[in-house]
Amino acid sequence: MRPVAFETLVAAPADGSTHGRRGRMQTPHGELDTPTFMPVGTNATVKALDPDDLREVGAQMILANTYHLFLRPGHERIARFGGLHRFMGWDGAILTDSGGFQVVSLGDLRSVDDDGVTFRSHIDGSVHRFTPELSIAIQEALGADVAVAFDQPVPPHASSRAEVAVATERTHRWAERSLAAHGRPDQGLFGIVQGGLEDDLRADSARTVAALPFDGICIGGLAGDETAEQRGHALDVVREALGDDPRPRYLMGLGSPADMLDAVDRGIDLFDSVLPARVARNGTLWVPEGKLNIQNAAFLDDDRPVQDDCPCRLCRTFSRAYLAHLFRAEELLAYRLATCHNLTFTLRFMALIRDALAAGTLPQLRATGSAARVATRAS
Amino acid sequence: MRPVAFETLVAAPADGSTHGRRGRMQTPHGELDTPTFMPVGTNATVKALDPDDLREVGAQMILANTYHLFLRPGHERIARFGGLHRFMGWDGAILTDSGGFQVVSLGDLRSVDDDGVTFRSHIDGSVHRFTPELSIAIQEALGADVAVAFDQPVPPHASSRAEVAVATERTHRWAERSLAAHGRPDQGLFGIVQGGLEDDLRADSARTVAALPFDGICIGGLAGDETAEQRGHALDVVREALGDDPRPRYLMGLGSPADMLDAVDRGIDLFDSVLPARVARNGTLWVPEGKLNIQNAAFLDDDRPVQDDCPCRLCRTFSRAYLAHLFRAEELLAYRLATCHNLTFTLRFMALIRDALAAGTLPQLRATGSAARVATRAS
Repeated sequence: MRPVAFETLVAAPADGSTHGRRGRMQTPHGELDTPTFMPVGTNATVKALDPDDLREVGAQMILANTYHLFLRPGHERIARFGGLHRFMGWDGAILTDSGGFQVVSLGDLRSVDDDGVTFRSHIDGSVHRFTPELSIAIQEALGADVAVAFDQPVPPHASSRAEVAVATERTHRWAERSLAAHGRPDQGLFGIVQGGLEDDLRADSARTVAALPFDGICIGGLAGDETAEQRGHALDVVREALGDDPRPRYLMGLGSPADMLDAVDRGIDLFDSVLPARVARNGTLWVPEGKLNIQNAAFLDDDRPVQDDCPCRLCRTFSRAYLAHLFRAEELLAYRLATCHNLTFTLRFMALIRDALAAGTLPQLRATGSAARVATRAS
Repeated sequence: MRPVAFETLVAAPADGSTHGRRGRMQTPHGELDTPTFMPVGTNATVKALDPDDLREVGAQMILANTYHLFLRPGHERIARFGGLHRFMGWDGAILTDSGGFQVVSLGDLRSVDDDGVTFRSHIDGSVHRFTPELSIAIQEALGADVAVAFDQPVPPHASSRAEVAVATERTHRWAERSLAAHGRPDQGLFGIVQGGLEDDLRADSARTVAALPFDGICIGGLAGDETAEQRGHALDVVREALGDDPRPRYLMGLGSPADMLDAVDRGIDLFDSVLPARVARNGTLWVPEGKLNIQNAAFLDDDRPVQDDCPCRLCRTFSRAYLAHLFRAEELLAYRLATCHNLTFTLRFMALIRDALAAGTLPQLRATGSAARVATRAS
């Protein structure tokens, strides 16, 4: 009996009108209705929110960053305190990433070899080295419900085919080492598919990772600077390579509603991104009509809620005028309220998608226009 | 029938062992148990908290700043939105100060004459002029439960006796103009006693202000750079001058627990200060034993709550180690949690004082040691 189990509740229809499916994932800290979105709690806190806020916005699972928590406050410290759930006061599900993305994107000095990656801390410049074995040991110490195999992500447009091939093959070897290193029985382990935008490398990577006994399949190296068409094509390649593989599919780093709707249609079950929260802290509020830039002076005189039918902490009490005032005064409450709204919007949008999948109406949902517009129907 | 009514529930004892009294103040937005403390919501938000947090920390009344809200977002705007309570989503009581303190302490350019004060905005340098009439008009537009007469505060140590005398007499003329200008029937109006550290000027100011039909008596020009002995003496002078005046007495700007305990003993009913919240945002947590500087590295390994018996949002879920981590990572949640704790501590301390006044044990409470230490007994 694995600690993480995935069940397809409504399979993609045989007519191919969508490849999206409605599912449910069991974890040691509760179940998730999929497709769904995981807010990101980089430093063991989803920025500006506390665990009660997270419940209220509808989060069932969040992501925490192995790289950041390794550097500060340290995984051994968190382990001594009983693990990440207890440390941050969150009794819902948690997934930790492997740190692979951060060590190749945040560190100044970095050198990658077959054994691992040496990098410099973005906090104090100290030098560290991650291997698949250390990444897994850190993640076991953190004690999330799901850990992720250590990989070498390569941004598609920054890499030649040869570079993508080397990184992808290395990711496969590290996948096996991650599996061998992982022993925590109450924690699932997901593998990562790479392969950049090269169809054959992508397909091979999907088949290689799927041949290993992971609990789920992450799709890495996307949600970067590729176009929507390139991303969609890569997802189609992966889906075809995976065939009827029963495990959950997690597209790492994607967070805009329209992009997620497209990815669900191509068979994705899980998402994470800092995007909804980051743009919220900059004063961009997502609404069914698109977005509001609350820094716009017109909102200082707008007594309406940001979104009429939204149940979030911001919309049920405060006006656009009040939020606009808080942003201008740089009051801390602004960032919490805006984050509550955008995460509520995002998670209600995923609920709308799930309803459409259950009702067999995802194609109609996609046809009604932008993902932002259709979110107005989420109840 | 006045909109604000004060009742002494337990009078100061005849033996003079304390001059403190237990009271209750009625306002259009609920009643206050006195003595009590008002958290400060400068920009129509108590920094880092929302109204639910304010209720949870035990606040019954908060203070908002007329000067700040006049400059941003503007009192007319707030009036159009139905007033300050609705604008900020707080249905408890609110007191607005007169702006007198801010225009003489925050503005760069300022000139005071008998008619009013001309000052420069600390936000954009624009030039404005406050008169008693404008201060009252702004406060009526904001619609707090209690407004305050416009005054000219003079910091004791920065002023000669002659300067104090001029400012105090001006404050008296402005008190009458404030009363004449005030017409909002659902809003109380408090007058302000000045007089610096000159006993005769203080006593005369107390008698002069008490002769006017205010709903309460503010004591201004203290909680600055005077010593505790000087402040205590000034409070004794005011109390003796007020005699058995039945109205509430509000010492403006004082917020440390030990200082408030001393002032209660000298007959004060109301306090406000940014202090508990400001030090919280700097990582200083008030506890019965004194204070914790959470930036101290030792707390990174301290799994205990900040205060064992504290019911606040911080202490009931999180460890010192987690808070220390949040501060080091400069996570926004740190400021909210620390503020919740210090305001809970402060308001529980006032509840402890009220219990002691009701039980006739305030002298014993004062004798047990520092105000911080005794707070541990607050239930």
